[in-house]
Amino acid sequence: MPDTNLQLTSTISEDNTLQLALKNIEIPQPGADEVVIRIEAAPINPSDLAVMFAAADMTTARQTGNEHNPVISAKVPAQNMLSVKARVGKSIPVGNEGAGTVVAAGSSVDAQALMGKTVAVIGGGTFRQYLCANVENCLELQSGTSAIEGASSFVNPLTALAMVETMRTEGHSAIVHAAAASNLGQMLNRICIADGIDLVNIVRKPEQETLLRNMGAKYVVNSSSDSFYAELTAALIETGATIAFDPIGGGKLASDILTCMEAAASRNLTEHSVYGSDTYKQVYIYGALDRGPITLNRNFGFAWGVNGFLLFNVLGKLGTETTIAMRKRVAAEITTTFASHYTHQVSLAQVLQLESLGAYAKQATSEKYLVLPQA
Amino acid sequence: MPDTNLQLTSTISEDNTLQLALKNIEIPQPGADEVVIRIEAAPINPSDLAVMFAAADMTTARQTGNEHNPVISAKVPAQNMLSVKARVGKSIPVGNEGAGTVVAAGSSVDAQALMGKTVAVIGGGTFRQYLCANVENCLELQSGTSAIEGASSFVNPLTALAMVETMRTEGHSAIVHAAAASNLGQMLNRICIADGIDLVNIVRKPEQETLLRNMGAKYVVNSSSDSFYAELTAALIETGATIAFDPIGGGKLASDILTCMEAAASRNLTEHSVYGSDTYKQVYIYGALDRGPITLNRNFGFAWGVNGFLLFNVLGKLGTETTIAMRKRVAAEITTTFASHYTHQVSLAQVLQLESLGAYAKQATSEKYLVLPQA
Repeated sequence: MPDTNLQLTSTISEDNTLQLALKNIEIPQPGADEVVIRIEAAPINPSDLAVMFAAADMTTARQTGNEHNPVISAKVPAQNMLSVKARVGKSIPVGNEGAGTVVAAGSSVDAQALMGKTVAVIGGGTFRQYLCANVENCLELQSGTSAIEGASSFVNPLTALAMVETMRTEGHSAIVHAAAASNLGQMLNRICIADGIDLVNIVRKPEQETLLRNMGAKYVVNSSSDSFYAELTAALIETGATIAFDPIGGGKLASDILTCMEAAASRNLTEHSVYGSDTYKQVYIYGALDRGPITLNRNFGFAWGVNGFLLFNVLGKLGTETTIAMRKRVAAEITTTFASHYTHQVSLAQVLQLESLGAYAKQATSEKYLVLPQA
Repeated sequence: MPDTNLQLTSTISEDNTLQLALKNIEIPQPGADEVVIRIEAAPINPSDLAVMFAAADMTTARQTGNEHNPVISAKVPAQNMLSVKARVGKSIPVGNEGAGTVVAAGSSVDAQALMGKTVAVIGGGTFRQYLCANVENCLELQSGTSAIEGASSFVNPLTALAMVETMRTEGHSAIVHAAAASNLGQMLNRICIADGIDLVNIVRKPEQETLLRNMGAKYVVNSSSDSFYAELTAALIETGATIAFDPIGGGKLASDILTCMEAAASRNLTEHSVYGSDTYKQVYIYGALDRGPITLNRNFGFAWGVNGFLLFNVLGKLGTETTIAMRKRVAAEITTTFASHYTHQVSLAQVLQLESLGAYAKQATSEKYLVLPQA
């Protein structure tokens, strides 16, 4: 194990520039409850892009440095500087999760137990070669699970499971999911099939419809279709879904979902109410694929909610026991229910090539990047 | 007591017309748990206008009939007919609350106990002369309270109290209120002063600022002011308010409130988070003074909610004991904390004059109509 290693960092300077670079940083000795993980695989998630790009205008991005040590620079519009003032001048390590082999361990029993094991890890900046992490943030993968298979063990799997738990604890019985062909959407589809929960998948493209139907999805509606409202309403009537999860945010999809839920809920009402039906309808926004404003056209009565949905807050609400049970399920089913699919595998240096940056920055449902820091 | 009496009704016909008229209907004999109330005063609330006007285009309103029995007709745009299909062909009685004298009572002890008393009543169509109501929907007013004083004992007082209870049960410690110079806003201001709760009042006009300050309000901000955001944020920092109630809905006020709450919550953060602060921020929309779309500009992180707030649903959540305690407080403080102020008193026939209709339909904060069915 070397003394130092490369870390992909994002830095905003006083002069309104963002810089992405590989910085050589020290590998610390693990504390009693810590382990050092040789990171072998880490996915690029939308939340990583938010850390990487922050408030910068990435259309101004240019690349300097060399092939092995590329540097990306971009301008931060002056009016955006206030929103990132707490990170100005700081090198932020990038990478929310990943997996690899434990190559050093602290003195505690829990840390020692992980020595030599393949683990998944959450937090800390995983776009690096060696990460020192608390054992609490590690998930031991089953023997035979590779780091590539386990790289996405936290963000997507726990988010999908948290959606199902939220549905249960808030008294709903079926789920609507937007951008449903994503890795997360495919996981949610498999969980719902396994757990016998009706899931209404909303996608935008015919090939995404086909993909999900081939994976056993019963309800798939295409928001680009002329008959979207009718088809969505029909699926809502059949499933009784009154809770939705939407990673898009901007635009009027959340509003349209509530409108169709209300149409489904009020279809049998014999008395008109100016307040709409008393069926409670909920949309959780868990991403910002469209950063534009959310527009709510109020034709869905008064029994509704639109709320932000952030994994860490939700796990806090669901409690430690539930979270531990979720983690165990993820480890047991990481190559089946929670399997992720990547279209590109890149080295740390390749993450900072303008061409690949342009591709993963699009956050296209069909493309997913995996970083291999040892490559 | 006569056999029949006049009821203000709203009827939508198959031919896309809305008709408002006074209809002669029978006064039923009260059942065991019912009383007949001679309605002496009933307020025109925004919720009554929603029942009266429904989906009609009131710019097409015209008046026929005669002085004592006027009729208002208006066109319902074809595309709106679907939203009111459950009420087509039905005469809907108008009037959500009111007060008067019990002139007949059923055989039960509870009903008999109200004989001759002045009571407030909720539901049933109070824009009439004699209303038969279940005792559960009646609130006995204290001796000496007039029907005019008690006319608004339910909708506004219980909504204001439900806001305070919701603040408490959801773990907030101060309140933001929009359109705060309304009758309801004035009640909320008095409740918060009495209960020692910080209240941030948002108004649109200087005279409303003055009105509330003269009533002891400490925090009043004017959304028409150039320094609105700075003033609102300052008030949020001082009070720590993280829950807001907004009867307007349409537009971007809810979004602006969340943005200022986030600015207040994140002002001392030393670490930047792409998810924003973890302070949960809530806006409840309890009206539709602006029926346009709600626009949410997402610059307030992930810990937020915007939800519909409907009194009857909220009371259901708060429970029977809380509701009973609220009603008792209203009866005891109806001429002080829960006093309403009316700018116009009108007869049933006057409600259906185009001129007064044009005035109360505006739902101006400074104007409030009281119907006197016996006039």
